[in-house]
Amino acid sequence: MSGLKITDFSVHDIRFPTNVTGDGTDAMNKECDYSAAYIVVKTDSDLKGQGMTFTIGRGNEIVVFAIEQIAKRILGMEVDKIFADMGAFWDFLVSDPQHRWLGPEKGVIHLATAAISNALWDMYAKHAGKPLWKLIVDFTPEEFVKATAFRYITDAITREEALALLKAKESGKKAREEEVKKRGYPAYTTSVGWLGYSDEKVKRLTKDALNQGFNHFKLKVGADPEDDLRRGRLIRSIIDDPANMPKGRKPIDPASIKDKNAGPTGCVLMVDANQVWDVSQAVEYMHKLEPLKPWFIEEPTAPDDAVGHAEIRKALKPINIGVATGEHAHNRMVFKQLLKLDAIDVCQIDSCRLGGVNEVLSVLLMSAKYGVPVCPHAGGVGLCEYVIHLSLIDYIAVSGDMERNVLEFVDHLHEHFLYPVSINDEGRYNVPTDPKGGYSIEMFDQSMADYAFPGGSYWVAAAKGEAPTPPQH
Amino acid sequence: MSGLKITDFSVHDIRFPTNVTGDGTDAMNKECDYSAAYIVVKTDSDLKGQGMTFTIGRGNEIVVFAIEQIAKRILGMEVDKIFADMGAFWDFLVSDPQHRWLGPEKGVIHLATAAISNALWDMYAKHAGKPLWKLIVDFTPEEFVKATAFRYITDAITREEALALLKAKESGKKAREEEVKKRGYPAYTTSVGWLGYSDEKVKRLTKDALNQGFNHFKLKVGADPEDDLRRGRLIRSIIDDPANMPKGRKPIDPASIKDKNAGPTGCVLMVDANQVWDVSQAVEYMHKLEPLKPWFIEEPTAPDDAVGHAEIRKALKPINIGVATGEHAHNRMVFKQLLKLDAIDVCQIDSCRLGGVNEVLSVLLMSAKYGVPVCPHAGGVGLCEYVIHLSLIDYIAVSGDMERNVLEFVDHLHEHFLYPVSINDEGRYNVPTDPKGGYSIEMFDQSMADYAFPGGSYWVAAAKGEAPTPPQH
Repeated sequence: MSGLKITDFSVHDIRFPTNVTGDGTDAMNKECDYSAAYIVVKTDSDLKGQGMTFTIGRGNEIVVFAIEQIAKRILGMEVDKIFADMGAFWDFLVSDPQHRWLGPEKGVIHLATAAISNALWDMYAKHAGKPLWKLIVDFTPEEFVKATAFRYITDAITREEALALLKAKESGKKAREEEVKKRGYPAYTTSVGWLGYSDEKVKRLTKDALNQGFNHFKLKVGADPEDDLRRGRLIRSIIDDPANMPKGRKPIDPASIKDKNAGPTGCVLMVDANQVWDVSQAVEYMHKLEPLKPWFIEEPTAPDDAVGHAEIRKALKPINIGVATGEHAHNRMVFKQLLKLDAIDVCQIDSCRLGGVNEVLSVLLMSAKYGVPVCPHAGGVGLCEYVIHLSLIDYIAVSGDMERNVLEFVDHLHEHFLYPVSINDEGRYNVPTDPKGGYSIEMFDQSMADYAFPGGSYWVAAAKGEAPTPPQH
Repeated sequence: MSGLKITDFSVHDIRFPTNVTGDGTDAMNKECDYSAAYIVVKTDSDLKGQGMTFTIGRGNEIVVFAIEQIAKRILGMEVDKIFADMGAFWDFLVSDPQHRWLGPEKGVIHLATAAISNALWDMYAKHAGKPLWKLIVDFTPEEFVKATAFRYITDAITREEALALLKAKESGKKAREEEVKKRGYPAYTTSVGWLGYSDEKVKRLTKDALNQGFNHFKLKVGADPEDDLRRGRLIRSIIDDPANMPKGRKPIDPASIKDKNAGPTGCVLMVDANQVWDVSQAVEYMHKLEPLKPWFIEEPTAPDDAVGHAEIRKALKPINIGVATGEHAHNRMVFKQLLKLDAIDVCQIDSCRLGGVNEVLSVLLMSAKYGVPVCPHAGGVGLCEYVIHLSLIDYIAVSGDMERNVLEFVDHLHEHFLYPVSINDEGRYNVPTDPKGGYSIEMFDQSMADYAFPGGSYWVAAAKGEAPTPPQH
């Protein structure tokens, strides 16, 4: 392969019409069309890398435009040299001084960086003939550390500490890999509790999810406490009732239910406010939702506010409600502060908002050191495909624990991917094993053609009022 | 004016070739072409609003593209309604759920929001026939609070606290306005100490600055401590020598020199690292620079890291070096955390990185409550024109103190503006008074035509290797 170069790239604005179905509605985000700003990086051979970042519609064109500008910088680079030091490649991506001014390491520039970084990791994994997670768990601790972004976080974890942490996990890696391949990785579902859904639909979806094997359920809250209580109690009444448990369901391992708020059937409820409150509002509102006994409140306030999250967590501790955040935490420095201030019970990384795999590794290492479980954000489009890889890396090579690190799962839009995620009959993610699958983000050409915005066949038909109704969940 | 609407806008990518001269080089930012992503908002009358955000070159096109997308949302809006509730207009600008996903309130989206918000404030001030600062200091406390962005900061300051603070300053407003009009607003200069300058140039510029009346000087550091010490001592040797003081210079009011590090002539040195260090590196490096006795170290580490800044400040307190930051602090939530954690001695707001005037008001109010002086970031292009307005608002209506709140001044590129800033013979900013000047950001048509990128006459000539050498400072 020596001498292969990056010769070209194409960037695609792909939007799925999720707005029509009410999927993805919460207290902050209405009218979402789940979208991908998607890049295909090409070489002078058949080797390609696919990468994307996720947006919710309008503005996807801005990220696409930013990817086009930034990707110009990688044209002509030799892929062998990139693969030999992915850490140096990431430094190169984020260190353009003029692009840094537009961030640094946040917002559109960082979302665009993530798409490119993810594409190169995808290409590297394909080149190595391994799924991305396997490529990384097979790294030596030294290689892992070399691929990790350490700038600005050495007050939380040094390279030496990271190395020691990874070495301590070396001997158990093989056994954990075998175990998770057999059992799958635990998941939770957000599909039941979007604000846009009717009570009838929530009820039906909750029962469906139970039958699929799920035992963690998430409800969107924040628009009206009375309404939230009603919908939460509805879900609780179903998931706490032993009569509703699917036949043949294996008893839940008590060791896996560390949450004191788990119900009599071992099922767990979480609630998510999507940043609607100020600090004191969050505390006040969550006291009203105490009867729902949620494991955590997700995104109670502004995602940049580590200090505010710490105050909320402290105030909710007496009523045994935890705090989770991270899907909008824009870089490792935000996670560092959340961890140093004891602000979170659960660390929710996003595979596209962090600047790609390198920065994810930083957060996995810091979270392991601080003893906080990582439950990645998923849903949207492509995020589930991505995050199973990240959770496998976390479990096998970093934290060594998967029974509290439930991974979000939303059963939307997987049909557009060549290597889609799937869930086993215990409601757990199957482990991706295809050696050609890379980072699992390759989309079917037909999907890319149909949903290209605004020129794809779906959107052209929609503009004429002739678009087919998307499938209902 | 009733019924006037926003009918159109134009967005311009304007870049000045500052790279050629070495202006603007520091430990992080090399090869800067100071640039403006510039919007002209038009109505169905002669009334226009000009606004911009500042970048350092490459990537300006991304911000321009983002402004174009976001500004579509304001087409057709009635200007009277906007002016009647600028707070509501700001909420509207930052609350598009789909654009929020790309931030929220940070990076390219927020820079673009700032340009648009600033343009509407400019239009409002022109409509009122007052410079922007005067429009706002004439607000009642209630009007001021109504125009301020409070979301996510009420744990630091409530509307009621802000109102009380502003009311307490009401009676002195008139006298302060008179005083600052007469004396000017204190400034400091960064022009002397860019990394790209030779010692000879630093020496000459320092003497020039002394003769212009300046008594605060800033040096860029972080590339090499020995080199920094040499350059710092060079500046110190000039500014501390009574023989170098300009003839007829009035003795410095001892009350205005609150800094224990001021030299025998009352001159003050500051140093600026532009984010190059991790937390422990910053502490270690600054111990090496202790002999320079700087007032503060600016941007010692990542701008998002309030916790890190707090640690650095605590570690440097025993050697009497303060901490300043803010030019890359992307929203009021970052400033809130810096203030709540006692992380800064000086709060350096940026008129374009914060999302326009409304969010600046939030930070002025919080800083006043926490007793931290505000010294806005300036330089670049257009920033000096903007920030004198903000410092006047701070002094007259909010903090009531201007003798520690020195305002950055860099003598570059003012010739392109219709209402440029100017400095009096005591090295202080003159107060803008033209009733047609608005927010002082209107650029000459000829400048916009010459420096439009890539099609303006300068850049077309540059592409052919025929561009004139820009003036040397």
